[in-house]
Parts: sequence; C-alpha cells; structure tokens
Amino acid sequence: MDHPIAIGVDLGGTLVRVGAFDVDGHLLGQHDASIASIGPEDGLHLIEDRIRLILKSVNSPTLLGIGIGATGPVESVYGIINNPYTLAGWKNVPIVERLNKTFNVPVRLENDADAAALGEYWQGAGKGAMRLYAVTVGTGVGTAFIVDGKIYRGVDGSHPEGGHQLIDPNGPKCYCGHRGCWESLISGPAISSLGRSAPNNSHLIELALYDPNRIDARFIAEAARAGDATAIAIMKKAATDFSLGIINIISLFVPDVLVLSGGVMKSADLFLPTLEEMLRTPNPMVPFDRVHIMPANLGYYAGLYGSAYTILSKYL
Amino acid sequence: MDHPIAIGVDLGGTLVRVGAFDVDGHLLGQHDASIASIGPEDGLHLIEDRIRLILKSVNSPTLLGIGIGATGPVESVYGIINNPYTLAGWKNVPIVERLNKTFNVPVRLENDADAAALGEYWQGAGKGAMRLYAVTVGTGVGTAFIVDGKIYRGVDGSHPEGGHQLIDPNGPKCYCGHRGCWESLISGPAISSLGRSAPNNSHLIELALYDPNRIDARFIAEAARAGDATAIAIMKKAATDFSLGIINIISLFVPDVLVLSGGVMKSADLFLPTLEEMLRTPNPMVPFDRVHIMPANLGYYAGLYGSAYTILSKYL
Repeated sequence: MDHPIAIGVDLGGTLVRVGAFDVDGHLLGQHDASIASIGPEDGLHLIEDRIRLILKSVNSPTLLGIGIGATGPVESVYGIINNPYTLAGWKNVPIVERLNKTFNVPVRLENDADAAALGEYWQGAGKGAMRLYAVTVGTGVGTAFIVDGKIYRGVDGSHPEGGHQLIDPNGPKCYCGHRGCWESLISGPAISSLGRSAPNNSHLIELALYDPNRIDARFIAEAARAGDATAIAIMKKAATDFSLGIINIISLFVPDVLVLSGGVMKSADLFLPTLEEMLRTPNPMVPFDRVHIMPANLGYYAGLYGSAYTILSKYL
Repeated sequence: MDHPIAIGVDLGGTLVRVGAFDVDGHLLGQHDASIASIGPEDGLHLIEDRIRLILKSVNSPTLLGIGIGATGPVESVYGIINNPYTLAGWKNVPIVERLNKTFNVPVRLENDADAAALGEYWQGAGKGAMRLYAVTVGTGVGTAFIVDGKIYRGVDGSHPEGGHQLIDPNGPKCYCGHRGCWESLISGPAISSLGRSAPNNSHLIELALYDPNRIDARFIAEAARAGDATAIAIMKKAATDFSLGIINIISLFVPDVLVLSGGVMKSADLFLPTLEEMLRTPNPMVPFDRVHIMPANLGYYAGLYGSAYTILSKYL
C-alpha cells in the first residue's frame, strides 16, 4: 500500500475537526469548520467536503478508514449519532453508513470522551498505559476508561458515566435525576452557579462590576488566585469535591495513569494541591502512590488522534 | 487423562474449606476445618492433610492443580499471603511455592473476594456474564470485578477496593484513612455501632435487655422488621448509603450483572426496596434498567468454586 493513512473526525457541538494520520501517529494535516446549528444533512456534506480536502492535501494516499469521535449520546454499535441536545437536529443520524457509502472504506464511531482518551493512550499523556482512566471537566464531566488499548464498555456497549457518580447526598439536583453527582458539583456551570449565588455585598460581585453574567468558572479561578475570599472558598469546595471523585475512581479502578483534561482543568493549579493532600492520607488498602495523575497533552487534538486510532490500531 | 479434577481451597480467618471439582463444575467432595490462630506452619500442614483426604475420597484422580482464595491482603503475582490482620502470624507466607512443592502441580492464589466472584461467574448467579461486579457486605465490604471470565486487576496486579469508595464526606472515620467510605457506613460493625449509640431510653436498648453487646446488625434488622422505630431509621439510613454505592458502581462500570453476598445481605429485604426506588429515577445517561442485580447463589461455597476455576478455566 502506498502512503496508508486514516482520517479522524472530531465532531463537537460547535466545531468539526478533520485530520489525516499516518500509521506512525503523525498528524499530516487538519481542517476545522463551524458545524453549529446547520443540521445533519448540511453537516454530513460539510464533513465529506473536509475529508476530500484533506485527502487532496496529503496527495491522495491509500485511505484505510475513517474514525469519528462525536459528542454523545452516540450508539457506537449501530454507527448512529443520536444527540439533538448539543447537535441541533442530529436525531438518529446513521453517519457510519453514510460515510462508508461515500468513501467505500471502514468507518467507526465513538463517544468523544472515549475518542479523546484513546488519543491520549496512543500519542499523549498516557502513552501505552495498560489501564488509562481519563476525566474531562468542562461544561460537563466526562470519563473514559481504556484497558489494553481498548475502550471499556458497559452492558450492550453502553458508555459508563463517572461524571455522574454521587459525591454529596445533599448536593444540587442534576439532570441525571440524582443529587450531588460529580458533574453537579465541579463542572464549569456548577462552579459559576456557586459564584453567582454569592452574597450581594461580596467582593466577588464587586470584581464583576455587579454583573453576575461575568462570573464564570474562569473568572472565579482568577479571582481566587488574586486573593478574593469568596472565590477562594468556592474553589476550595470544588477542589475537595473533585478530589473525592478522583479518590473513588482510583479505589475502584486503580489505573496506571489518570489523565485530566477540559476547560476547568486549565485551573489545575487550584485543584491538585487539595487532591495531593487528600491522597497523602496513607491508605493500607489501595496503592494511591502507584497511580500517575497527569494533565492530558494533546489538548484540542486528543479526539482527532483517538478517532484515527480506532482505524489505525488494526495496523500497528 | 483419567478423572481430571482441580482442588479449591477457601482460606478464611476462622475456617479453611477444601473441595474437589471436575471440569464440568461438579463439587465432588469437600471438607472444612478450623484454622483460627494456629499460625502458618500448622495451617499449611492442615491444608495439605485436607487436600490428601479429599484426593483419597474421590479415588485419586488426575490432579490438574490447586486454586486458593484467601482473605487478603494477598499478593497473587508472587503467590504470597501477607495477612497478619485476620490470619494471626501469616506474614509473607509463600503458600503457592509450598503447595507446588508438596503436590507437584500448578497452584494459584487469589484474594477471597475475587475468588468468590469467579465462582459466581462460573457456576452461580452471574453465570457467563460478560461483566460481573460482586459486592460482599459483611464484617467489611469487599468488591470484585470479573470481565470476560477474568479478574480485573489494577496497577501492578493490585485489587481495587470498591468498599472504600467515599459516600458521605461527613461520615465516620475508617481505617482506610478517609471519612464516610462505604464500609464505614454499611458493614455489619458500622450498623451495630449505630444501634449501640442509640439513646439510652430507646426501645431498641430495651429490646436488647439493656445489654448493648446484643445489638449487632442482625439484631437491628430483626428489630426493624418487628417495627422498632430506631432500628427502622438505622436500616433506612444503611439502605440509602448502600444504594448510593451501588448506583456509583453501576454508573462507573455498567455491568451486566451485579451479585450481592455476605452476612448483611441476608437482610437484603431491608436494602433492596430503597435501591429499587432510587434506581427508578430515570437516568438519561446510564441504562440502570439493563443491569441485573441479584443475590449470590453459591453461598459459603462461592470461594471454593472460584478457587478451583482459576485452575479449570484453562481446560474449559
């Protein structure tokens, strides 16, 4: 085969990213485009166009296949995206069948958290780890578990949701139906909401020029670094709840590597000291010290790498 | 080979049980003996004697190997029991090497929770389940996870401890170093301790004839069934904490089957209604309804079956 490559497609709620990889894991080229609110028909055309563009730019190599990592819910087994929540109109979209017909190559579809974790396993922070657990803290809290280079799946191919583990029985209500799940306590919106409900006379509100809309998770993190007492308390609470969830994951999986990513983790400096302190408590049962906790290092490209890897793993 | 069999050894803190199994999973015979406080040297002799006795009673067949499930901590990889906590004097005991020399067959060692879960996978409640999660609630809370018929292990072969997941940040201190872990809330001793600290004028203390030592988990469960208000409240709290832990396990693993065992689970009638109620909350993220929750059905023999299976699995 001449120049064998795979295409990775990272389909988010606002942006689609398409890239070409060789079997050694080199990203040969990539494009992105806005896909927000254009619906599935125009969206699929856009993806097909970008794939053709990329194939042209890398001198029409042998295409081994196309891997897609898409914002969930997706049904990997059936190759269907069913996510009208963050991809308007994408209800029961058979993207695998469609791309397979267009390009006549194998096509695979995975949840975006799984794809990003696979990317970190292949070329990122958890390269080659036998057991890699990935946690993404952003608008939501997503988790993925990679064992021996394969995505761990639950019954009927379902995607486990570590972000909805229950941390505080008295915590806020979540759309998952329960109270005090991890996401309801440490996601960006959860942290913002703590800031926005701070007392009217707090210094935090003053910093925000009395406009609560300015108070998002990043604003609160910055205010905490600058010494604002309300912000420090909010970040300390979030760091504690973050650590409780990480300790549970370690106790239940004891992974070789735990990779952290997502917008909120850009403020890892405000989370990790609390986690390290809580992990220092000697635990005679679980070897906390043998688990490597590290930031993801492929950034926005993790999903692209992982999507391509779903195809390339067969050739390695 | 004539009559190929394997020996299973279930080594607990008070009793050792030895049994012979054919490759079809029939228990051909078993013996048990007290092993409490006799130390490793006499203990190993006792185990060897019981193995010889069993081999004789099943007409000296071809012995394929010996599997041991022992109360932890054990180091499976090195074949060493290192448990002076519940097996007095058993510090760094190379039981695998010893039995291998004596009987000249392959010998394997596993943690007892893992062995019992393997037993339920092979011939019990979770027969053949692709993903089986086992929870034992007794003096402690033990967990085991069997994937594709194999024990899931953490980094360096470590045994994960779902019993020490953190459920209530304000809960009681545990020897694991943290507060409000699952074991500290729902184990037999945890439930007893709630009963023993009930107010002096409670009806529960009266039922116990003012002797707090009578108040163990079973006593409290019986009092709850008989309508005692204090006991009902204690069991309701325990059932809620039990359910929070089960929901976390389902969210994180989505197993096909979740098997419950152990002394406290003999009062499953007081736990399951609360769990069922909490699982009825529709969760758009995790398919709670596809996870089969069921009692173990090999009872005291689960560990024996699983130990033998560590040898027989190669011949099936």
